[in-house]
Amino acid sequence: MEEDKVRGKAEPSGWPAKAWSLLSATRSESPLIQCITNFVSMDLMANTLLSAGASPAMIHSADEIPDFTPHARALCINVGTLSADWLPAMKLAAQFACQSCKPWVLDPVAAGASGFRLKACLELVELKPTVIRGNASEVIALSKASLGPSKGVDSSHESTDAVEAAKSLAQASGAIVAVSGAVDIVTDGERVVGAHNGVPMMQRITATGCSVTALIAAFVAVDPLHALEATVSALSIFGVAGEMGMNLAKGPASLRMHLIDSLYGLDDAVVHSRVSITSFS
Amino acid sequence: MEEDKVRGKAEPSGWPAKAWSLLSATRSESPLIQCITNFVSMDLMANTLLSAGASPAMIHSADEIPDFTPHARALCINVGTLSADWLPAMKLAAQFACQSCKPWVLDPVAAGASGFRLKACLELVELKPTVIRGNASEVIALSKASLGPSKGVDSSHESTDAVEAAKSLAQASGAIVAVSGAVDIVTDGERVVGAHNGVPMMQRITATGCSVTALIAAFVAVDPLHALEATVSALSIFGVAGEMGMNLAKGPASLRMHLIDSLYGLDDAVVHSRVSITSFS
Amino acid sequence: MEEDKVRGKAEPSGWPAKAWSLLSATRSESPLIQCITNFVSMDLMANTLLSAGASPAMIHSADEIPDFTPHARALCINVGTLSADWLPAMKLAAQFACQSCKPWVLDPVAAGASGFRLKACLELVELKPTVIRGNASEVIALSKASLGPSKGVDSSHESTDAVEAAKSLAQASGAIVAVSGAVDIVTDGERVVGAHNGVPMMQRITATGCSVTALIAAFVAVDPLHALEATVSALSIFGVAGEMGMNLAKGPASLRMHLIDSLYGLDDAVVHSRVSITSFS
Repeated sequence: MEEDKVRGKAEPSGWPAKAWSLLSATRSESPLIQCITNFVSMDLMANTLLSAGASPAMIHSADEIPDFTPHARALCINVGTLSADWLPAMKLAAQFACQSCKPWVLDPVAAGASGFRLKACLELVELKPTVIRGNASEVIALSKASLGPSKGVDSSHESTDAVEAAKSLAQASGAIVAVSGAVDIVTDGERVVGAHNGVPMMQRITATGCSVTALIAAFVAVDPLHALEATVSALSIFGVAGEMGMNLAKGPASLRMHLIDSLYGLDDAVVHSRVSITSFS
Repeated sequence: MEEDKVRGKAEPSGWPAKAWSLLSATRSESPLIQCITNFVSMDLMANTLLSAGASPAMIHSADEIPDFTPHARALCINVGTLSADWLPAMKLAAQFACQSCKPWVLDPVAAGASGFRLKACLELVELKPTVIRGNASEVIALSKASLGPSKGVDSSHESTDAVEAAKSLAQASGAIVAVSGAVDIVTDGERVVGAHNGVPMMQRITATGCSVTALIAAFVAVDPLHALEATVSALSIFGVAGEMGMNLAKGPASLRMHLIDSLYGLDDAVVHSRVSITSFS
Repeated sequence: MEEDKVRGKAEPSGWPAKAWSLLSATRSESPLIQCITNFVSMDLMANTLLSAGASPAMIHSADEIPDFTPHARALCINVGTLSADWLPAMKLAAQFACQSCKPWVLDPVAAGASGFRLKACLELVELKPTVIRGNASEVIALSKASLGPSKGVDSSHESTDAVEAAKSLAQASGAIVAVSGAVDIVTDGERVVGAHNGVPMMQRITATGCSVTALIAAFVAVDPLHALEATVSALSIFGVAGEMGMNLAKGPASLRMHLIDSLYGLDDAVVHSRVSITSFS
């Protein structure tokens, strides 16, 4: 099957086809994605998933997880507005996902902001996320804490830091690790791939990071055996939607609207002409 | 009074006038609507109520209900992001509404998603909601559970299922039951009325269902003695706003914006030319 | 330094320059603003802060406050969806801010809606907010309760009420008190300044009041020694953004978008030509 060949073995030159096949699969299969996330981003995350064709479910109560989580095709956990009473349900849902071999994605928002938060993120990493996506400082904080201070990253070049931290975290956790930035970096601990799409103004909109994490969950749901490819593709597709949206935007609020509209309307031709992914190693 | 005559006795041909009179009353009376709802939809629900002229209050703490709920003209309870610590306040508020004969509306989001959720919904149905609005699967889940499995609906035609389930639930609960779909169905257990307005892309925006439930609460607040008419009218007005918004939209995010703008700007002429409501029985 | 002279001594004729200098400082310094706020407004508040150049952090757990709050440059507490389990963290964060002499801003949403809420607001006022911003009824409720009924305001003219209530509350609490309305009033208990910018349709968008309170927190963060000037400037800048947005808006939802875009794009010339602030005493 042509489709499966593309999904299974994404050569550098095959990235646009891979990204398009995952968006198409998300649209046609409409995977159910459970999100246990923060109060700020629930709305944009749900709309991102809907505009990509997925089916979001913001269900966070521990009372429902045993019944509900087995029906979801992937789980997205985001600690943005973490509190002690939400953490047990996050861990329980991650356990259910892990036990049933379903992909789950962790967004360790502000991992280094407090001892409480860092400890919570480390406990979640122990539960074997399929993918971890954060910004450079989050991934560095998590990597240092996972490895202990003596094995930590201490280069003064933050972009190099982030790549090395991501590789170390990937190796220590077994997860695909993605670092958002001017270029998004994705690694399984060996391979390093960069996604170049996106526009700087996306950082002036709250919840864009959370939303692309949700899109990663959707793409991993439809292709769980190729989590690195799914992660890179989601980052790139979201970035392309941002680029298309930027053509119409007059500021961050109109960019947010046009980004979601663009994600909904993306077609094969735009994806193939725009997706820019490179393998670094 | 011409106005009262229209409100009191809505003949099939009088639906547009009825819908317009309820929107006008909402604008002029600005009823205070208390919403105990989910984290995802609070923003859009509040903006829907504001754009329709109502006054939203998202107050959910049990500590405030005895003081606050008596001042609201209607109550809207939505179980979207339900957890055990929110349920008691939902029940307390419903009791206050019920005891003081104020209308209250239940949105049983994902009623069948877990045993915990279904039980919670059934407990809320026991507290005599004026209106229950859900999609077909929610109404069917609730109807089956209310009636017991032996009396459940088991037709293989889901649209027929939903109508029969809605009628059964209405009879068992005493509530007006609305089922959102390509055609929205509203029944008191005997009469069945269909609201035909709306556009499919509204399903690609999170919280549109929750928001129309809030609009139902506003319309029931201004005409509590005619809850079926108020429910049908709210569904139709929201659908008309969606149709008007769709004329300007380029995707789900711009539709969301234009829908709210259109709801704010709807006038008599548009309502009369667009509202499409039919009585099925 | 020219800049400091403008910041330090804002003559009536110097208001536009003052407002512009605070927006510029917010953009260049990107102050970290911690918000413990309500579920409805988190999204718009975060986007308001981002579009003004500040860095929002919606962190509300008591477990994180000792680690995190010392890193924030200002704190914004908003009781919109208050519940008993959130109040201790609000008070703890306010104590940290107060002890470390960092500015913090209180938004006493619906202060008079319940005894529980009024008591909570009074407890927060005891923790020495730098600024309190509310609408007339909130400020009047808080002022009456702070002063006791015998010293309460009982004029029948609500606009006069609000000014007198604001002055009394400012004197009793030591805070700058702002009252939003057709003209926004700001007082330190002696001086009374009015900010005239804004458009009525902003009241038909949820969370605009919460969002301007967050902007006040950002402006107070970059100029903590001149809290009255920062408060007036934030109200005026947000109002100017609303005026610019209104030129493009077709209803409340597009106004919301254009307001944020405009806040992001405001330049010196627009601020100088639009800002309208007058000293009443």
